[in-house]
Amino acid sequence: MNGFVSLVGAGPGDPDLLTVKAARLLAEADLVLYDALVSPAMLELAAHAQRFFVGKRAHKKSVRQETIHWLMIRAARRGKRVVRLKCGDPFVFGRGGEEALALVKAGIPFEVVPGVSSAVAAPGLAGIPVTHRGVSSGFLVVAGHSESAYGPILQNVAPNSLTVVVLMGLAARASIASFLIAHGWRPQTPAAVLLAASQRDATAWTGTLESLAQAPPLEAEADAPGTRVVGEVVSLAAELGNIASSEAGGLHVRSR
Amino acid sequence: MNGFVSLVGAGPGDPDLLTVKAARLLAEADLVLYDALVSPAMLELAAHAQRFFVGKRAHKKSVRQETIHWLMIRAARRGKRVVRLKCGDPFVFGRGGEEALALVKAGIPFEVVPGVSSAVAAPGLAGIPVTHRGVSSGFLVVAGHSESAYGPILQNVAPNSLTVVVLMGLAARASIASFLIAHGWRPQTPAAVLLAASQRDATAWTGTLESLAQAPPLEAEADAPGTRVVGEVVSLAAELGNIASSEAGGLHVRSR
Repeated sequence: MNGFVSLVGAGPGDPDLLTVKAARLLAEADLVLYDALVSPAMLELAAHAQRFFVGKRAHKKSVRQETIHWLMIRAARRGKRVVRLKCGDPFVFGRGGEEALALVKAGIPFEVVPGVSSAVAAPGLAGIPVTHRGVSSGFLVVAGHSESAYGPILQNVAPNSLTVVVLMGLAARASIASFLIAHGWRPQTPAAVLLAASQRDATAWTGTLESLAQAPPLEAEADAPGTRVVGEVVSLAAELGNIASSEAGGLHVRSR
Repeated sequence: MNGFVSLVGAGPGDPDLLTVKAARLLAEADLVLYDALVSPAMLELAAHAQRFFVGKRAHKKSVRQETIHWLMIRAARRGKRVVRLKCGDPFVFGRGGEEALALVKAGIPFEVVPGVSSAVAAPGLAGIPVTHRGVSSGFLVVAGHSESAYGPILQNVAPNSLTVVVLMGLAARASIASFLIAHGWRPQTPAAVLLAASQRDATAWTGTLESLAQAPPLEAEADAPGTRVVGEVVSLAAELGNIASSEAGGLHVRSR
């Protein structure tokens, strides 16, 4: 009766962007504990598993982190193959580190299965390379929900020296735009908001840092996992965006 | 006769970390143009394809970037399904943006298939979460081969404010360590060197920023795709890393 936990990255949303290993683990799983933003089509791959939603969503009641730990540990002790399915990569703002530490503490064997992170994939699918020769030789990934998270990191970064990718905190995008402008970034720096990347209802808005601060309301945004990108690389979307997204299914690029 | 090019991320090396879509595109491909570090097991998935190595390796003659463009365009014009297989994600230091622009200019339809980037996966597989609650709320990815690439980005970053991931330029790791220390990073900041992540001969070395500057020679390093990580999150590897053995000098060999 040897249970096992796999902390698995689900990628940005399209089941086709699961890794081969993630798809196999889902097919073999006894129990899947999944987050918000994991699509029904992914869960269908877990044909033999019990599936529990343990996600957190803004303004809604959610499962406590300790409960997630307890569910994983209890199932593993009963000999189950547990897949903890997390959006993107398990270690990019996913509290995956905390879950791994809980498993170590409980003596449960586990593995980490990296996934495609939205930090890179969402821009890429919209025709925005996070790095580009002669334009940006690095990128920075921060969480956007509060200045206490991104402020200490962004306050000293040399303005317009690299690509900034912001995950989470979509509703607070005006704050981070104002923060960057106040810290010396050019108001005309190209900026993008990418919603539901890799999914059928994917939407990309491109504009400037200044207009991001006054960005238009975006459909379904309350619950949407919006990725923001700030930097000169965003201007490549004008050339690369439409063609790159033609296969991804209806990416609508709106610019202003 | 409609040819098509897919710019595909191969992930860090293990074929199991290809995306489901990448594996399918390989199986359907007529032509695969692949980089260094793409494993033979991945190429075997492209059973019906012609396969050309077009990678660049240090100190060796390599195919010119323009030749890669020409090969993709010529094959697509002949109606071929072309997979341009690139390590990690195609838009993270992969010159994928340049290849996409060349395809746009030539009028060739194409798509971008994001992959698992070593920037996140190599640390993750060694038990190092790039972000961790209360420890690091962001990460920065730079190329390590020359100060002209990382200097303008790193010179103003607040010391010890986030996780720094360095791709490429493994041989120049002493320079970037000295640079960070000269710019105020604590010499005792935990640091790691991760070689051949996700592969059978994966090796992880952990120590401090100071010792990274004097890091021990690592096997096969001339050609190795070494990922370096600097920041407090590296200390989590002691608990989370599945470290099989440890030797004097902080060299840890991790086996799969």
